[in-house]
Amino acid sequence: MLIEDIGEFGLIRRISKIAAVKDKRIIVPIGDDAAVVTSDPNLLLVLTSDILIEGVHFKLGTISPNELGYKAMAINISDIAAMAGIPRFALVSMGLKPKTSVEFAEAIYRGMMKAIRKYRLILVGGDTTEAPHITLSVTIIGEVEPAYLRRRSEAAIGDKILVTGRLGASKAGLELLLNPQFKGSFRYEKSLRRAHLVPIPRVVEARIVSKHGAHAMEDISDGLASEINHICEESRVGARILAYRIPVAKGVREIALALGKKPLDFALYGGEDYEIVFTAPPSKAEEIKNYLLGETGTLVTEVGEIVDRKEGICLVNKEGKVSQLTTFGYEHFKKRR
Amino acid sequence: MLIEDIGEFGLIRRISKIAAVKDKRIIVPIGDDAAVVTSDPNLLLVLTSDILIEGVHFKLGTISPNELGYKAMAINISDIAAMAGIPRFALVSMGLKPKTSVEFAEAIYRGMMKAIRKYRLILVGGDTTEAPHITLSVTIIGEVEPAYLRRRSEAAIGDKILVTGRLGASKAGLELLLNPQFKGSFRYEKSLRRAHLVPIPRVVEARIVSKHGAHAMEDISDGLASEINHICEESRVGARILAYRIPVAKGVREIALALGKKPLDFALYGGEDYEIVFTAPPSKAEEIKNYLLGETGTLVTEVGEIVDRKEGICLVNKEGKVSQLTTFGYEHFKKRR
Repeated sequence: MLIEDIGEFGLIRRISKIAAVKDKRIIVPIGDDAAVVTSDPNLLLVLTSDILIEGVHFKLGTISPNELGYKAMAINISDIAAMAGIPRFALVSMGLKPKTSVEFAEAIYRGMMKAIRKYRLILVGGDTTEAPHITLSVTIIGEVEPAYLRRRSEAAIGDKILVTGRLGASKAGLELLLNPQFKGSFRYEKSLRRAHLVPIPRVVEARIVSKHGAHAMEDISDGLASEINHICEESRVGARILAYRIPVAKGVREIALALGKKPLDFALYGGEDYEIVFTAPPSKAEEIKNYLLGETGTLVTEVGEIVDRKEGICLVNKEGKVSQLTTFGYEHFKKRR
Repeated sequence: MLIEDIGEFGLIRRISKIAAVKDKRIIVPIGDDAAVVTSDPNLLLVLTSDILIEGVHFKLGTISPNELGYKAMAINISDIAAMAGIPRFALVSMGLKPKTSVEFAEAIYRGMMKAIRKYRLILVGGDTTEAPHITLSVTIIGEVEPAYLRRRSEAAIGDKILVTGRLGASKAGLELLLNPQFKGSFRYEKSLRRAHLVPIPRVVEARIVSKHGAHAMEDISDGLASEINHICEESRVGARILAYRIPVAKGVREIALALGKKPLDFALYGGEDYEIVFTAPPSKAEEIKNYLLGETGTLVTEVGEIVDRKEGICLVNKEGKVSQLTTFGYEHFKKRR
């Protein structure tokens, strides 16, 4: 069945069934001009929006519609996590080609609902429209207690820099998807592909990190180097990153080498790992590490420290050699030279 | 200057300047992973999202970037108005072609800021990305007191149906834009074009209508017939529309006739007028009309009444002839036969 066979309203009806939920926080659900919800009065609202466009952010050959829906939701949830917020309500605007099959559109929504249920959000509305390319625009409204809110601008000199989980897996997974000739040649292929297609936002971890005294915090969407650069710019500090401490995910090394690239670059610049990078005073760093591992099983690794601004952002290798970082990650629009 | 010359972050920096604002409700502004704002605890949140895509919702030859930005914001504000809400915070995701000029992108934002300032919203963030077609996705978070909230589902048999302003102007304006050979041939051309390009959401009017006892309420985005159909479906009632009472905007008649079309069809099916249609018990209808005209100068016209569901939705002409309405307005995706 094609979308043009059932039309916009037919599609909305089917989507409403997939997204149906009862919750006392919903006053007016999907279907009116706007959704109306209640919010807890002692919380701040946390708002984020992200758009994914076919051919720019994803290629249909490398991601299933279910994974695409999940990922579009997950990356927005990750932005709420990065503020130590609790994701509450989601709005989705979706542009689809008339010749897209209804099953395909529904699979996108099913993937979204998987993330929505897992992280206990409520889908409250959005917009469905014709588009020349599949376009997914997600907005999430979250909440955070004022005391737990963490910003980019609060890193202090002497803070340790820590990351959750292991890095580079998403980039390695992407390379596997872009190079089908690799299929079956490497260990950990499945988990690497999943890291790219079905990332896990660190909502619980970010709240624990925040409660236990972290200073600045971000999710790793553009790559560790780029996120540390953001923290340093906003906090007006520098950073010393210990290259040999960066936790590179299993299987990344082999794939990087097969492509003639450095495994460390996957972890530093690959992006889309959606782990959390944060800074904390040395007295708190150990406590956070131990507490997080005990509570969630999530590894936390110290990868450097915050230094004076005039030192810039530098990378230290095992032999103590120091090099300045000057490029930090992917940027849209820029001419590739 | 092209966007590819300054890149995404250069563009965001320029946009941040255009959108800069200080407000005590902003805890974390644009630039972090998510925006954080405070909200009044005694209000419900009203959430709406809309996406506009080049070639589907607009053609660049017929709308300036400034008007496009304004309109994208205005149509979302209108959805908040339709719930009797006060628009508070806006998020914007924008997809732009790398070869788009920076001035063009900035003009879109300036247009948005015009609506944002006029209706006293705060732009708190969003996303900027590469796209094969210009794509604008706007989300607005508004608030409404529980007692003022108006839904589609609350029309009652015996209610009068009323509309603000005059209808059909937006459709006539669109026809003028699509038929440049008409230029200079008609009176009211400028105001008709403006009705299409720079619509005025009825935020103040909708709140007054709601406070004075309206039942169901909607903004007219898809056309009067389509909105009345929505109200009837949700409220499980029928409607009797008095064709000769529908207030057709000045200049619509001449343009419809020049195209061999019925002026009334522009008002019934044209859409994008962003006036408010509402139902109210007869005892309240007159009061609302007089009060709104006195307070805002906005005309309110009674155009029909709510009847039993089994009568369906029918149109009555001056001679008392009754015809059933079966088609109601524009729908995306549907094959045009």
